[in-house]
Amino acid sequence: MSLEAFQEISPADFFYRNRDIAGFTNPSRALYSTIRELVENSLDACETSMITPDIYVRLRQPVEAENYPTVYEVRVMDNGLGVPPDVIPSAFGQVLFGSKYRLRQARGTFGLGVKMALLYGQITTHSATRVISATIGSGEIHEYTLTMDIQGNKPIILERKVKPNRGRWHGTIVEFSTEGDYPRAMPKIVEYLRQTAIVAPYADITFVDPRGRIYRFERATTKMPRPPREAKPHPEGVDVETFKRLLTASTARNLRDFMTESFQRIGRRTADAFLEYAGVNPRKATANISPEEILTLVNAMKSFGRFLPPDASCLSPLGEELLEAGIRKVLKPEFVAVHQRPPASYSGYPFIVEVGIAYGGEVPKEDNKITLLRFANKIPLLFDEASDVSWKVVNSLDWRRYNVTMDMPVAVITHLCSTKIPYKTVGKEYIADRPEIEREILCGLREVARRLSAFISRRRSVEMERRRLNIFLKYLPKLASFSTSLAGKKEEPDINPLLRKVSRLAVVDEG
Amino acid sequence: MSLEAFQEISPADFFYRNRDIAGFTNPSRALYSTIRELVENSLDACETSMITPDIYVRLRQPVEAENYPTVYEVRVMDNGLGVPPDVIPSAFGQVLFGSKYRLRQARGTFGLGVKMALLYGQITTHSATRVISATIGSGEIHEYTLTMDIQGNKPIILERKVKPNRGRWHGTIVEFSTEGDYPRAMPKIVEYLRQTAIVAPYADITFVDPRGRIYRFERATTKMPRPPREAKPHPEGVDVETFKRLLTASTARNLRDFMTESFQRIGRRTADAFLEYAGVNPRKATANISPEEILTLVNAMKSFGRFLPPDASCLSPLGEELLEAGIRKVLKPEFVAVHQRPPASYSGYPFIVEVGIAYGGEVPKEDNKITLLRFANKIPLLFDEASDVSWKVVNSLDWRRYNVTMDMPVAVITHLCSTKIPYKTVGKEYIADRPEIEREILCGLREVARRLSAFISRRRSVEMERRRLNIFLKYLPKLASFSTSLAGKKEEPDINPLLRKVSRLAVVDEG
Repeated sequence: MSLEAFQEISPADFFYRNRDIAGFTNPSRALYSTIRELVENSLDACETSMITPDIYVRLRQPVEAENYPTVYEVRVMDNGLGVPPDVIPSAFGQVLFGSKYRLRQARGTFGLGVKMALLYGQITTHSATRVISATIGSGEIHEYTLTMDIQGNKPIILERKVKPNRGRWHGTIVEFSTEGDYPRAMPKIVEYLRQTAIVAPYADITFVDPRGRIYRFERATTKMPRPPREAKPHPEGVDVETFKRLLTASTARNLRDFMTESFQRIGRRTADAFLEYAGVNPRKATANISPEEILTLVNAMKSFGRFLPPDASCLSPLGEELLEAGIRKVLKPEFVAVHQRPPASYSGYPFIVEVGIAYGGEVPKEDNKITLLRFANKIPLLFDEASDVSWKVVNSLDWRRYNVTMDMPVAVITHLCSTKIPYKTVGKEYIADRPEIEREILCGLREVARRLSAFISRRRSVEMERRRLNIFLKYLPKLASFSTSLAGKKEEPDINPLLRKVSRLAVVDEG
Repeated sequence: MSLEAFQEISPADFFYRNRDIAGFTNPSRALYSTIRELVENSLDACETSMITPDIYVRLRQPVEAENYPTVYEVRVMDNGLGVPPDVIPSAFGQVLFGSKYRLRQARGTFGLGVKMALLYGQITTHSATRVISATIGSGEIHEYTLTMDIQGNKPIILERKVKPNRGRWHGTIVEFSTEGDYPRAMPKIVEYLRQTAIVAPYADITFVDPRGRIYRFERATTKMPRPPREAKPHPEGVDVETFKRLLTASTARNLRDFMTESFQRIGRRTADAFLEYAGVNPRKATANISPEEILTLVNAMKSFGRFLPPDASCLSPLGEELLEAGIRKVLKPEFVAVHQRPPASYSGYPFIVEVGIAYGGEVPKEDNKITLLRFANKIPLLFDEASDVSWKVVNSLDWRRYNVTMDMPVAVITHLCSTKIPYKTVGKEYIADRPEIEREILCGLREVARRLSAFISRRRSVEMERRRLNIFLKYLPKLASFSTSLAGKKEEPDINPLLRKVSRLAVVDEG
């Protein structure tokens, strides 16, 4: 009986073997994920520095294809803050290396997406990636041609060039080849860009597809939300491992200073109250804290209950004005209502929910259901809708109470932003149903549904009134003419004062 | 404007930060995932060596709790083939190290589950793990106490002991503490074990819960399916990266030998036909193959179309007999039908679908839907049902055509086994809807639904016949007595021959 063979694999190898879990399941889905990951990276690279994004995406098909999948040349260009030349190779050729591993609201969270796109291109077309980038204010443009050593998880640099940057351009260009199935991926790619335009109305996005069609999503505003800031951890979200890391990184001499310096929203008074509650001396040197005391402190943090809630000022929600502008631009509805909920938190992570509702116009009338557009940290989520917390909430509502029937063109838009979105897949398809998040979405949805309900019921009254007046309009002249001849008079009386009298609403003028 | 800070993290750190994607979302879900990952590891450790599994799981709650989550002591013991002493530290203390990275049907695929369970225990309770193991035939039992360096992704050995193994015991014991919420996790844990008993009817599983309740799932049979074998890759499932790795590992001198030795089901004749089709000389030395030729060969493999289908003999399906035994044991239905589909393949991976249907007995009558039990490589899948390919198929069927109405107690059981299950999450919750898999599930479901349909329609006829006979039974004696007195006779005639005459089915005897 043979023993099992054990082996160690690199993180690049792990994600190469399990690319399904990162959204690279088949040539159609992979092409969608490729575009999406690159666009999100570009948007992040602009927004963190308050640059209004100009993003250009081109897919070229070098060889005429009869069958799909086939090979595409991908080119994505942005005007973001650029990647420092010394980190370009690792940032594009090493898995689990990146700028996303911070407590900050960003589209990217795993530091994996772009590398997965390049890896997929490499294993399907055996070609290299070209990265051209200049950081803000730099006099040089750096160009790398590189490929990935998947088993070793390291970049292999094939060529590097430096060019003068006279125009002081900044941004990043990524070019590579990949296998895909554009005919099948097309609807999702276009829908993704269209929804991105809702949630980033300040971005200019151009997409040239393999057939040469140009999709232009022009910015509707140059107003941008405040960029997200990096946050210190909240004590309620900290486990033993994070506590130890903070302790190692800290220069504080004693526990009280450590508490106020390493965590968010803890002043001296809260620190003392907490340490008394935990039964640990505030003047204890950080170097002398035992493993048992760490456990005591971490557990006490969870049960203390008197910390201020997590600081949401580090979040960058869209805001009601921008959300409404985005919805109006894309769905052109008859009616729209948006609502931003106050900040809340789960497991020590702050979050804000924004909900919108749209009626009529170009809102699709779906078969017996409400259209749901889901967003998380400004990313449209297009797959696995039925597993998402928003779907659960939308389908739990008794819509008849809000005058909404399933044959109406109604769309619900939800946007969750947080320093940590509880995605359930690396492909960022859907959000876990944390009860705190579920409750906030429900409250937001009720608010906008109430406003839609009022709109619908007013429209219904107007409609009924119009029908009622139509009856008067039809018969009053006849009655007038009849009574005139009956009375033997020549001139018919003016019926307008009478009409105005029976009208309950100001619809005569409106109509 | 500041530049972005870049950083490299270890795979352990990645999964520590993103434990949601591995099923460790909250204390309730984490406890469920913990039990599940350990039980699956134990079952794999038995089945690969044809050992009928004896698995003992104990959860102890050392401190009385008023609020949950609280701390639990976990102990899982199996009689599997054991872990070699030199790899114990890495197998239990290093992420992306394991025995699962092979082309073979197994419950585990990511080599991650047990490490995630221990990591979660460590970050919530700050305690160490004890692993006791002996391999088959070994005279020693090795015991390690260890913890994990998450940032460095390496085990830290705190203690190690060697004891004599006089009884020649083999197997593995894992003990550690973790935070959990048993009251909330309980229904899912018990359901998981119950469904495991369906799909592994040859396993003996004992679970002692924190309240001291004992759940015993005794084996219904000692018959085990043939253990899965490791397979060579099929040419249609190979990309550039895999091709290069096979080339590096190969000792073949020329391309033809490489083709026949490194891939499954390729003989000399197929190798020559393929290489002619690809336009590459069969006698070319493997060392001289250029990157362009690799790409040509990989693309030609996909379009060749004359390879034999992937070899399914390496798979270990349950078989109709065992599946039916499992269903009968747990659901105790009035009617059951099972069907195993012939082997099929997707992207070069072989797979087999098994489908069962059960009616009545202890099959739950769910509100307006059919109960669905999903299995993949003998794992019950309990979460995110609505995103699973089986759910899609079950809900696409026109059940009325099969005499099934939604108020009937009907359960559908699907089992997919493959060398590679296309899971969409590391937590192994649901299966992507690959069209090839969808089609096989549909064919299997139609077959068992047809048989259920025949059962229901026969039962319905029997029911109608019984009602019809009841009418005869009620009135014939009266008629007999009436006609007897009318005819002035004393003795009533025997009505039984008459009854038998009007009876269309053999229900008189049955009843």
